[in-house]
Amino acid sequence: MDSSVLYRSILCVCSALLLIFTLSWLQTPTAPPTFSRLFTPHPKLIQSSAHHHESDIPRHPLDPLTISEITAARAILFSHPPFSSSPSSLIFHSLALDEPDKSAVLSWSSGDSLPPRRASVVVRFKGEAHLLAIDLAKGSVSSLPTPATGFPTMTIEDMTSSAAAPLLDAAFNRSIIARGVRISDLACLPVSSGWFGREIENRRRLIKVQCYSSEGTANFYMRPIEGLTVLVDMDTKEVVQINDEGGDIPIPKSTGTDYRYEAAGGNEMARPLRPISIEQPEGPSFDVVDGHRVRWAGWEFHLKADARAGLVVSSAGVADPVSGERRSVLYKGYASELFVPYMDPTDAWYFKTYMDAGEYGFGLQAMPLIPLNDCPRNAYYMDGIFIAADGRPYVRSNMICVFESYAGDIGWRHSESPITGLEIREARPKVTLVARMAASVANYDYIVDWEFQTDGIIRVKVGLSGILMVKGAPYTHVKHFPAKQDTYGTLLSENIIGVIHDHFITFHLDMDVDGTNNSFVKVGLARQDTNAGQPRRSYLKATRHVARTEKEAQIKLKLYEPYEFHVVNAEKTTRLGNPVGYKVVPAGTAAALLDPNDPPQLRGAFTNNQIWVTPRNKTEEWAGGLFVYQNQGEDTLAVWSERDRSIESKDIVLWYTLGFHHIPCQEDFPIMPTVSSSFDLKPVNFFERNPILRSPPNMEKDLPVCTAAASA
Amino acid sequence: MDSSVLYRSILCVCSALLLIFTLSWLQTPTAPPTFSRLFTPHPKLIQSSAHHHESDIPRHPLDPLTISEITAARAILFSHPPFSSSPSSLIFHSLALDEPDKSAVLSWSSGDSLPPRRASVVVRFKGEAHLLAIDLAKGSVSSLPTPATGFPTMTIEDMTSSAAAPLLDAAFNRSIIARGVRISDLACLPVSSGWFGREIENRRRLIKVQCYSSEGTANFYMRPIEGLTVLVDMDTKEVVQINDEGGDIPIPKSTGTDYRYEAAGGNEMARPLRPISIEQPEGPSFDVVDGHRVRWAGWEFHLKADARAGLVVSSAGVADPVSGERRSVLYKGYASELFVPYMDPTDAWYFKTYMDAGEYGFGLQAMPLIPLNDCPRNAYYMDGIFIAADGRPYVRSNMICVFESYAGDIGWRHSESPITGLEIREARPKVTLVARMAASVANYDYIVDWEFQTDGIIRVKVGLSGILMVKGAPYTHVKHFPAKQDTYGTLLSENIIGVIHDHFITFHLDMDVDGTNNSFVKVGLARQDTNAGQPRRSYLKATRHVARTEKEAQIKLKLYEPYEFHVVNAEKTTRLGNPVGYKVVPAGTAAALLDPNDPPQLRGAFTNNQIWVTPRNKTEEWAGGLFVYQNQGEDTLAVWSERDRSIESKDIVLWYTLGFHHIPCQEDFPIMPTVSSSFDLKPVNFFERNPILRSPPNMEKDLPVCTAAASA
Repeated sequence: MDSSVLYRSILCVCSALLLIFTLSWLQTPTAPPTFSRLFTPHPKLIQSSAHHHESDIPRHPLDPLTISEITAARAILFSHPPFSSSPSSLIFHSLALDEPDKSAVLSWSSGDSLPPRRASVVVRFKGEAHLLAIDLAKGSVSSLPTPATGFPTMTIEDMTSSAAAPLLDAAFNRSIIARGVRISDLACLPVSSGWFGREIENRRRLIKVQCYSSEGTANFYMRPIEGLTVLVDMDTKEVVQINDEGGDIPIPKSTGTDYRYEAAGGNEMARPLRPISIEQPEGPSFDVVDGHRVRWAGWEFHLKADARAGLVVSSAGVADPVSGERRSVLYKGYASELFVPYMDPTDAWYFKTYMDAGEYGFGLQAMPLIPLNDCPRNAYYMDGIFIAADGRPYVRSNMICVFESYAGDIGWRHSESPITGLEIREARPKVTLVARMAASVANYDYIVDWEFQTDGIIRVKVGLSGILMVKGAPYTHVKHFPAKQDTYGTLLSENIIGVIHDHFITFHLDMDVDGTNNSFVKVGLARQDTNAGQPRRSYLKATRHVARTEKEAQIKLKLYEPYEFHVVNAEKTTRLGNPVGYKVVPAGTAAALLDPNDPPQLRGAFTNNQIWVTPRNKTEEWAGGLFVYQNQGEDTLAVWSERDRSIESKDIVLWYTLGFHHIPCQEDFPIMPTVSSSFDLKPVNFFERNPILRSPPNMEKDLPVCTAAASA
Repeated sequence: MDSSVLYRSILCVCSALLLIFTLSWLQTPTAPPTFSRLFTPHPKLIQSSAHHHESDIPRHPLDPLTISEITAARAILFSHPPFSSSPSSLIFHSLALDEPDKSAVLSWSSGDSLPPRRASVVVRFKGEAHLLAIDLAKGSVSSLPTPATGFPTMTIEDMTSSAAAPLLDAAFNRSIIARGVRISDLACLPVSSGWFGREIENRRRLIKVQCYSSEGTANFYMRPIEGLTVLVDMDTKEVVQINDEGGDIPIPKSTGTDYRYEAAGGNEMARPLRPISIEQPEGPSFDVVDGHRVRWAGWEFHLKADARAGLVVSSAGVADPVSGERRSVLYKGYASELFVPYMDPTDAWYFKTYMDAGEYGFGLQAMPLIPLNDCPRNAYYMDGIFIAADGRPYVRSNMICVFESYAGDIGWRHSESPITGLEIREARPKVTLVARMAASVANYDYIVDWEFQTDGIIRVKVGLSGILMVKGAPYTHVKHFPAKQDTYGTLLSENIIGVIHDHFITFHLDMDVDGTNNSFVKVGLARQDTNAGQPRRSYLKATRHVARTEKEAQIKLKLYEPYEFHVVNAEKTTRLGNPVGYKVVPAGTAAALLDPNDPPQLRGAFTNNQIWVTPRNKTEEWAGGLFVYQNQGEDTLAVWSERDRSIESKDIVLWYTLGFHHIPCQEDFPIMPTVSSSFDLKPVNFFERNPILRSPPNMEKDLPVCTAAASA
């Protein structure tokens, strides 16, 4: 505790000023909550939504709250005791649709009146968190229990004001100046502090602030001021503690780290590739009904932005190619939580164990997508409506894009070979529909794609790009590394170490395979030995095991003990008697390897398995708990699953965790080429036969006629 | 042995007739070796090569033999004793370029005269296999040792004539008629017989023939005549044995199995999607120099068709973005062998353990790609030149396609989030270059893509499509399945079981990471426990282990014992001291689970690990052995690797096996939607920094101007 009473007073004044500044841009609902410290925005970069949302009205039970509904909910709360006593003390952490019961949604048809619109709200009032449900028509407010530990998702204002707080601390400023950094070049990040079982953590919302120099580059992440960590009280903005080590570690001086096109010379740059584009001059094959219902090639699903989850796919169903009937597949799918532990236990790094959705808001951090580059030319864009800390709505434009993709791949094919000599050559192009968002949680960028295929597959793909969180180091060459001491990563440039870390993204997948009554089936493939005297000694046999309770569905993937993982309808079979199902098909992934009792892993225990299945429960939406920030891991998927409830012939939720180990390499510097992995939800005896058997081939006569751009 | 002396005589006469028929289409070098039994080819389906190859001359040391070189090699052999004594007894199994020593290739520059052109030939003469090297300029022939067991890759004539052989057997014909199948509807497949350690197998080349009814459908694969297996002597065409069981199993009657566009009603079919196309009206960004050298975005590689491997990528290097210098990555990469064991040990199925490259010729089975459907509109096509059994060359047109792909994906991106409030939005589109082939080994279709990325990655992707090998069964519903008896698969339609099987594709990857002196390094990530009293209990630490000998590089992948697998240059580091490397990055795969001593697994022992590393050895090109057909597994990668030779600081070959378990489902009927997986070769401290940092964004002004097709 270096801050004196004097500095504390200054801090309070400045916090008040900051709040005023912060609130100033909250007056207009369409302004994004940003304040620019270092750069003047380039006119091209300011996205303006083509659509004004003030007059939006909800048209589907799952439609997000509109601006007027948010405003109404806010007004109801402001007039609700005890908040009415001091409305300015009310801080909004989330305000979103409280979705109707599934039965009400499933029984709703287009044209019906909507089920009662409710808002689910998390606020803090005089330091206490409240979880509330508001009935918008009745104006009623009901209070719901809150978790035992943890705090709500930070507000953007929490983040920005905390990051600014150290500037009011004299010791901090002295340290910065001693390191030769100009205060005007300072860029500081609010780093969630985790929970490590210490007394100090239980009393208040804490955050760690670490700073960088932006001298000469927009990529300040490559200029860490290493070893200087400021612990800030997020509510008082008080500097609680300063850890100031590593003053002898130079601030890295690498040049050419600015990745911006303009900074890199812009139009003078060599353009190695000629223009290439996905073109569909007759227009897309999808439509978006009432702003949120996407229909394409037999698929229909509801799509919306969410402040915490980012992108939410709901009520996804596919038309049966024979009956034409719409059959449900997935009631709700979204990234429920992330866990990103860094592998450096030292003072300035041990706490970096991010849970990006519940701490920072995966949607709050999803910025406008960049046409032609984040999404192709044929993309359609969708906005998000979020709230600021004072409960006012604002529009995040172009947060989601939807487009048809064709990479030149093959949907199915068969040629008859010279063996049979038949002149058969058949192939079908593979066209898919992608719904995309990209969240930038400070340095890292996560691209999340939901890709719908005509063959019934839903592929969920996560791409990692953006900028590494790096560590300043005294080394300029690997030969300087100390012999016996772990350096925790790779030397990426002079004085820069890319610290090893993991990424886990846990998806909530409320499967409704042809209805809500589902079971989880493990289909194992195991070696069978044949009787003596047979030509073959062995073969593989498939056996089915229906999981009765949750513990039977806690799955660690093993290459040498392979299973397929089916969610089947408990009541329906195909005409041949096969259970109607979808399977989750993992691709490349990584497992959590930390000590399960390590505090970060206790909080990230939802990554202890790759697959879990739980009975659907409205209070079990967030794998790390409703209040993730600084919580103690008592409200995770792992804890819920330990109750070992029945999951057979139930409305069940499948959880899948996609993991990445990242040992950085020089190619990741100063910005990382995208690394992707995915998993599939794939029909398995869901259809009676190949649903794209009757899809037609491409023909030259149907394809567009294109000429080079006039400017070429 | 059911065949009588009479039938044997008829067989000989007919074989002679067949040979005459076979040879008749070998007169024109451009005619593919097919004979049509059931269908008249549709005019649209006949691919004609835009390029006539008679006047081709080789321009690069790795260029395949030209038509005139093949003709010359053939003439040399015909005049070489003992073959000159009876040229008509000489059967050509392969005749391809005998590649020059790597040192000669690496020292060659464009404009230099080529190293001496040699042919490597496998022939059989009076029943004996010969491996020969021919110096084309000198006209000299040298004889090389042949493997102890096994036979060369079948000729197309072996396959077609064997499949026809049972028709001359009276017992066979009686069985067919008794099952109610018209002989005119019969379609028979030659199924490699494997090796199971029985006396009968050592004396001669044997093949199993199984037949189908094509009544009412082009998709005869869905009409198996179950249980009838004819063992044929491939040389005499003699029926050695008939297994005739399952006469009570009906021939499945499913309708609507014909997948052809014309058969399905053609233009009357619903077209659910509007046209979509990858367009680059200014033309592609790659060029193909001298017919085989592909240059794109800094990449340069040699690309050719091969009768056995299918598609071969050679001499792949990438320009360093800083120095502009071309740096080698991969000297030679190709699918070395496949292994496809079916999981049914009963009489009619146990032997189905295909090794498609060495038995059937992965290139021989690769048919012309279908423009607009197998490859997008912007594709370039390359032909293959193969030989018939008489040594004459023929052209397989459009066997490979090369195209730039853009799926709307992101090469890298970063937005500054509301946390920092900076107005930075940068993203770059991801464009790749794909080289593709598709082999149809009777029923199954394998799509093999080599995808080159601007960030230095080479992604090798295998797609599986085509038609399942199914089993006739008495069941029309799962409820009829016997309680205790394994049915070996899934009921896909009435009386049709899709039998469980695996696919393994083993790639030979002769890595030359920035030169030929390479080492293989396992970079392990393992948990470290911290000292008591620290906030974190654990973290992951990376450790490097350089594999000294082959056994240290026999790798079984484990999710819970993760490694990165680097091939590094043993002499070069980055300026920071990191070893210059490429890593192999597995994605989804499957492991071999059969008894390692099961005869098929002994022969497919190259799948016992996912990764192997061997010192480069010209005689170790084919993972299952040079002569795979009916061999005993004594010449596999597993046997070579057991010698445990030094691999440190050597010219080494990395072998990666991509695997799939396939439990069929109804969606696979009657033709399978493509299932894909892949692995990456990815630069790891190969470049000093992100090589695509300076790539420009897409701009509207550069993109094409397209209108709907005139016919729309």
